[in-house]
Amino acid sequence: MSDFAATTRNRVRRIPARGHYDKAVIYPIIDEALICHVGFVADGLPYVIPTIHARSGDKLIFHGAKASRMMKQIASGKTICVTFTLLDGLVLARSTFHSSMNYRSAVVFGRGRPLTDDAEKMAALEILTEHLAHGRWADARPPNAKELNSTAVAKLTIESASAKIRTGPPGDDEEDYALPIWAGVLSIQQQYLPPIDDPGLADGLAAPDYIVNYSRNGKGDAD
Amino acid sequence: MSDFAATTRNRVRRIPARGHYDKAVIYPIIDEALICHVGFVADGLPYVIPTIHARSGDKLIFHGAKASRMMKQIASGKTICVTFTLLDGLVLARSTFHSSMNYRSAVVFGRGRPLTDDAEKMAALEILTEHLAHGRWADARPPNAKELNSTAVAKLTIESASAKIRTGPPGDDEEDYALPIWAGVLSIQQQYLPPIDDPGLADGLAAPDYIVNYSRNGKGDAD
Repeated sequence: MSDFAATTRNRVRRIPARGHYDKAVIYPIIDEALICHVGFVADGLPYVIPTIHARSGDKLIFHGAKASRMMKQIASGKTICVTFTLLDGLVLARSTFHSSMNYRSAVVFGRGRPLTDDAEKMAALEILTEHLAHGRWADARPPNAKELNSTAVAKLTIESASAKIRTGPPGDDEEDYALPIWAGVLSIQQQYLPPIDDPGLADGLAAPDYIVNYSRNGKGDAD
Repeated sequence: MSDFAATTRNRVRRIPARGHYDKAVIYPIIDEALICHVGFVADGLPYVIPTIHARSGDKLIFHGAKASRMMKQIASGKTICVTFTLLDGLVLARSTFHSSMNYRSAVVFGRGRPLTDDAEKMAALEILTEHLAHGRWADARPPNAKELNSTAVAKLTIESASAKIRTGPPGDDEEDYALPIWAGVLSIQQQYLPPIDDPGLADGLAAPDYIVNYSRNGKGDAD
């Protein structure tokens, strides 16, 4: 029994064998992704906006300026689509037809609500900051009253979700393996370069370990 | 005079100074991005699907399985939103409020049509393959009649577009510069690992130069 029922909305239609409906598969993709793409409908038109997110259990947290159209849409209670994509490689088959990408993606549907309580907003901003860089909340200056007031925070309950994953080498047609064409995978990795100090940095301050050794592998858990 | 008029649809609302409406800024983002996120409305709900794209002048090219819902939506002639996001770094300000990301993103609106002519489909698939890996079309086995028939290809005319870009160090509040908190930028780079040969690769075939030296910088031009 999967965590999420496969319905018209979230069922992986193309290549169903790549589809997954379990939190244990879907949530690590959400947690590893630094950003997501939020889809909403306004005046009948589709909008797709990249933004920072964080997950807390079965909820997604978003923040933005108070006047942000995206934040208003997320907080409106209408169904929102949120997509997370991790690109793992180019799959170069002998045929262009079987050429593909290795990836892990998740598509989530849910409805949001605005956070209005200051303590609840602060707790959500901590989770967002920690999603970006685990360890940062303890170091950085937290939002003051004015900043908190000008920041909209929304929480969306994940109602339906699916993941789609492709891994491994190309899958060519049997007769194409004899062709004199190189085939294989070109893996993609997010590389984090050595941190660049702010030009206005006070003397004697060094980048913290969680920045120097920054990594997104093993982020979060599938709780 | 910008290439695209800033309207309700494409105007960059949050931090307008980061907004751009010129093809010379927008098109290189589209070309460098390996994939995009396609947004459409079906039965009143928003959907956001990651997919491979390519640009040809003021058109975007997409392909997929004939039965693909996304392809039907793109080909339907309804307005589609396509978003391209390049993440360039984490911006760690002293305050969580001013912490941000460095990025280059583009949001495009347009309407598509299906390609039905085989020669036109083939030309579009060449552009898609070359977007993925410049040089691959000449090497790989092109689609045969059966593959071409089972592949849907659509072309979308870019009607409206904008880009949003953030670069550089954090911008903290004046009084925060004195805080004993490290601040700076952690740059992100897509790294392409050494190619992995397909396990079924025939003897004597080596990965071509365009794979070994793969890079997405300087992809395309802003024509």
